Amino acid sequence: MNAAILTIGQEILIGQIVDTNSAWIASQLNLIGINVSRIASIPDVESDIIHTLKQLTEKFDLVITTGGLGPTSDDITKLSFCKFFGCKLVTHHESLTQIEHLFKSRGLPLTDLNIQQALVPECCEPLLNRQGTAPGMWFKHNDCIVVSLPGVPFEMIGLMQEFVLPRLSQLNVTQVIIHKTLHTFGLPESFLAERLAEWERGLPKGISLAYLPSPVSIRLRLTSIGDNRGQVEESIDDQVERLKAVIPEYLFGYNENDTMASVVGDMLRKTNATLSVAESCTGGMVSQLITSMPGSSDYFNGSVVAYANRVKKEVLGVDKNLIEKYGAVSQEVVEAMALGVKRAMHSDYAIATSGVAGPGGGTLQKPVGTLWIAISSPTLTMSKLFKLGGDRERIILRGAVTALNMLRLRMVEENVKSF
Amino acid sequence: MNAAILTIGQEILIGQIVDTNSAWIASQLNLIGINVSRIASIPDVESDIIHTLKQLTEKFDLVITTGGLGPTSDDITKLSFCKFFGCKLVTHHESLTQIEHLFKSRGLPLTDLNIQQALVPECCEPLLNRQGTAPGMWFKHNDCIVVSLPGVPFEMIGLMQEFVLPRLSQLNVTQVIIHKTLHTFGLPESFLAERLAEWERGLPKGISLAYLPSPVSIRLRLTSIGDNRGQVEESIDDQVERLKAVIPEYLFGYNENDTMASVVGDMLRKTNATLSVAESCTGGMVSQLITSMPGSSDYFNGSVVAYANRVKKEVLGVDKNLIEKYGAVSQEVVEAMALGVKRAMHSDYAIATSGVAGPGGGTLQKPVGTLWIAISSPTLTMSKLFKLGGDRERIILRGAVTALNMLRLRMVEENVKSF
Repeated sequence: MNAAILTIGQEILIGQIVDTNSAWIASQLNLIGINVSRIASIPDVESDIIHTLKQLTEKFDLVITTGGLGPTSDDITKLSFCKFFGCKLVTHHESLTQIEHLFKSRGLPLTDLNIQQALVPECCEPLLNRQGTAPGMWFKHNDCIVVSLPGVPFEMIGLMQEFVLPRLSQLNVTQVIIHKTLHTFGLPESFLAERLAEWERGLPKGISLAYLPSPVSIRLRLTSIGDNRGQVEESIDDQVERLKAVIPEYLFGYNENDTMASVVGDMLRKTNATLSVAESCTGGMVSQLITSMPGSSDYFNGSVVAYANRVKKEVLGVDKNLIEKYGAVSQEVVEAMALGVKRAMHSDYAIATSGVAGPGGGTLQKPVGTLWIAISSPTLTMSKLFKLGGDRERIILRGAVTALNMLRLRMVEENVKSF
Repeated sequence: MNAAILTIGQEILIGQIVDTNSAWIASQLNLIGINVSRIASIPDVESDIIHTLKQLTEKFDLVITTGGLGPTSDDITKLSFCKFFGCKLVTHHESLTQIEHLFKSRGLPLTDLNIQQALVPECCEPLLNRQGTAPGMWFKHNDCIVVSLPGVPFEMIGLMQEFVLPRLSQLNVTQVIIHKTLHTFGLPESFLAERLAEWERGLPKGISLAYLPSPVSIRLRLTSIGDNRGQVEESIDDQVERLKAVIPEYLFGYNENDTMASVVGDMLRKTNATLSVAESCTGGMVSQLITSMPGSSDYFNGSVVAYANRVKKEVLGVDKNLIEKYGAVSQEVVEAMALGVKRAMHSDYAIATSGVAGPGGGTLQKPVGTLWIAISSPTLTMSKLFKLGGDRERIILRGAVTALNMLRLRMVEENVKSF
């Protein structure tokens, strides 16, 4: 199956937003064995929409469009689709009920524009949008499937996951494709590649490896293709075991949706332990990553973001002499912060961060990117100095994940038998 | 001048990288009055490259391509261009000297592949790449300008800034395009559209409006096109003033890069005021948004993320009877949290949040999405109940921005003369 992705709207063409939707859709289609050979962006102009739909439906088996389904006057995708497919708009009652429910639950009145959101071309199969008001649409045109989705990323993702990907998987069943994603942290890509070179050379035919780097991890995606599901699964599991032996300390997750915060959270839950955090330069990012996990209240007591030195002293109980003598960005202060928050919040473990996120505040001795991280466990308090690169945003995020990873490594050491 | 941008290569089509080049090029072309009405990605396949070049050069005045100029075997852009334009490859001596110099300075040996990088189609004007090894290329085909650039972002940007943009600016002096972006928060898109309908109908010819919704704001983008820069600027400024009068309470930013946190931060800095935050369900997100701003230590003292009730009592000083009587998600507790953190951190203002982010923890009376927000100012403490939709991630983010917006509105009220 050969697919094209089309985004409709001005935002991308004037460069105001980056088209992340197409990349996400392309990666998901790839996972189920559908090849994407065209991505295009066009404006909200009827003739452009109709002309491009004609071209793409002639050439591809699948066309996924995003955007142009909003309630405002610049959104003309539905009317253009009606013209192209030759049908009229009708109300999708399930969507209307959903829209009414949505507005009622938020205590908002329903306007004509909202009601119009439930209109869809008669010749499509509407897909109920549980995250928003604009339904998705599934069309069949000659031998081509055309799917139209809203441009708001989480609405598009919701519809893709609930309807579009499962259906396409069923239609495209010639081969078994299995992906396995492993998460690494702490080794730059080129070093990781060197460490894995020998293992990679030994991969059997049919298994391929991709590096997917991001600021919070480098994911390794193994893709195995074959005719027999059992064999494909066995061969990929075998390679994962070999890989584990090569880089045990850098691998932290073995499931697609694992994150550093979910892995650390699972370890805390498993050992019935609690955590609190004292953050200076990471400014709440460590807490935010931890609490982004559903159920994190099971193990997370809370945190103190101590930006002002007075807060470090009065709320965390850091000795003011330490701050004066060593500065806030120091081993002495970061360890005192960890101990302070652990004591104040009666936790088993604590993390503390203190550094220079920039762009201002750097000195010759402590340049931007300098970061002290402390971990306090039931048995020991330790700290480590890191030098991170990049801009403020990256330093904060990398710093927060590095802190979680330090806690993870400590917990592994202290609980070898549990994990 | 009407332009298309074309990226050549597999990385984008398999979703491994997001196409940030096209957004950057589009925004730069827009700034010099060149309209982009097509962005497309195609694979490294000769027939695709030639077919797409044919289509685009027939329809557009300018085609900018990126990618496919690397030294490896999958990069075939130059050969495909030779076929399309009907010419052969020749050495660009200036580029060869540059490549030799580059390798010498890094102490690396020069390979045949590197030397081949200096080959360009004879019919192009080569553009020296000072950041890398692949030269850019400037073609003229009938009435269309075709520019080919490497896909590595900083090499592409270097060539655009040194050669392409200055030349295009000189060629394209017919029209002026000005964009103005305004940020709104608090009104759903459809309500905003209704409120703005009359104003929008009154927009003069040449000015258009687009809605750009995201979880943290709805941006309104006004685009004005004309021949005379002064007139275009005046006419767009005039419309912005009219718009301000229609939705004063929902407009919070008037510059492209404004965010709720930057606007609130500027207000705090301007009034010499300090802020602290007590977060329950937002879990550090309010703090994280505030501290993402460079220089936020000027006004942000710190925060307490109080997940456990014991932390609310012991660190924030919330009366345990309030928690027992009303529950943690209540007006009484959230106001006590705001007062508690304001007192503990000696701040002028405080924000507090307490709610149910889900997916668990909801009850009939306090379902997932229930959120109490309190603001405490030097003169008053107030709170408000919100009902937010969406998943955990969205509730946390929307809740945090809603809290910042509540502080903003309060500060506007208390400092009418300052803002």
